Amino acid sequence: MAQSGSLIAFDLYGTLLSTESISKRLSEILGSQETGTQVAASWRKYQLEYSWRLTCMESYDDFYNITRNALRHALSEAAVRLEEDQIDQLMDEYDHLSTFPDVTPALQNLTKRPDIKTVIFSNGTKQMVSNSVFRSQDLSPHASLFTDLVTVEDVKAYKPAPAVYEHLAVSTGTQMGDIWLISANPFDIVGAGDYGLKTAWIDRNGRGWEDAAVPRLRPRIIGKSLDEVIKAILDDLSK
Amino acid sequence: MAQSGSLIAFDLYGTLLSTESISKRLSEILGSQETGTQVAASWRKYQLEYSWRLTCMESYDDFYNITRNALRHALSEAAVRLEEDQIDQLMDEYDHLSTFPDVTPALQNLTKRPDIKTVIFSNGTKQMVSNSVFRSQDLSPHASLFTDLVTVEDVKAYKPAPAVYEHLAVSTGTQMGDIWLISANPFDIVGAGDYGLKTAWIDRNGRGWEDAAVPRLRPRIIGKSLDEVIKAILDDLSK
Repeated sequence: MAQSGSLIAFDLYGTLLSTESISKRLSEILGSQETGTQVAASWRKYQLEYSWRLTCMESYDDFYNITRNALRHALSEAAVRLEEDQIDQLMDEYDHLSTFPDVTPALQNLTKRPDIKTVIFSNGTKQMVSNSVFRSQDLSPHASLFTDLVTVEDVKAYKPAPAVYEHLAVSTGTQMGDIWLISANPFDIVGAGDYGLKTAWIDRNGRGWEDAAVPRLRPRIIGKSLDEVIKAILDDLSK
Repeated sequence: MAQSGSLIAFDLYGTLLSTESISKRLSEILGSQETGTQVAASWRKYQLEYSWRLTCMESYDDFYNITRNALRHALSEAAVRLEEDQIDQLMDEYDHLSTFPDVTPALQNLTKRPDIKTVIFSNGTKQMVSNSVFRSQDLSPHASLFTDLVTVEDVKAYKPAPAVYEHLAVSTGTQMGDIWLISANPFDIVGAGDYGLKTAWIDRNGRGWEDAAVPRLRPRIIGKSLDEVIKAILDDLSK
């Protein structure tokens, strides 16, 4: 039996949803796979950088805006110009992302466990996250699994700010020690772990844990797929 | 005449001092220029990432430690192993960095202006910054130009946290509107500008301002060399 009051929170972008299709779309628009891959990587880099820098500055702009601004930075760095409607198209891709291949079977297994409460927990705006979950061809069939979409918009700070994890605990009415966070993003794992959540890291590349921002903070569980990670969490909860 | 009470604060790493020699030393140790350059770039990336993430987490570890931890991350990512004494050697490089070629003439010009108060303002620890300034063959002859070495160690947060810029103003007894910050690092320019400092950005690559973390925040002055930037500041101060 799952412990009463326990919760699994899923990070969304890079954890359930792959941004690979954005990279492909960029390559198509730019007419070069190399430039597309490069701009996509640099876009993601600036998206995260901006989220951290704004949080350091005790400032806030929503995830849609910083994602769009980060794209401009990445394009400028690659000396590429796009029209506004092409930028709109790229931003629209966020509403139609695919899940990673290991996600569907893992979520299917979880539907057999109605005793486990699950939520999405994302940096995105409510609008982005809602669109991403309900319009994704892969993820929307599982949308009913999630009892809530928790975003950072209410607290106006980004992961890994303590206020963000506090908001997750408060808005789900769960003690932080009863929350499992599943993320493929090391910065999220370290931030949640520092705040006292239990953390499970998806290591899809199988490289092992390399992050050393806070060397003592490592994920409680490491698995190569969502299925592996969820099984390990369910094992832990049944103890 | 400079306005009474005005101050020029210089960022250190990447602004006055180039970390190019670290990249060369890495290439020597690793026996490959390509791997050396790649690890050096990724080292710098994680050094900044860690400084931002810890500040978001309202946590702190000093710049020496996060720099060392970031190196481990970069080496692991490149699947390279180094011995502890090799890592020590690389960290020691911070005590013997060269200045960028445009720095010496600019600082020489500034010695003719004893009415201008100047300080170093860095993320580094007091020990690192002191070593970097007094042991650098290029920079140590100009050490007497700086009336203070202001570091973030006292406030236990990193740039661009407001507390860091507040600390600069308080510890130098200068109103923030009377402080010019010179930096080649866009995140520092944006943070200082948001806090009300006057900002001058050194654009050594001549790419122009690309940062879009806060689109309305742009440097007050942009110059391709320290000399250009200082001349523009002195012009402004003489108005």
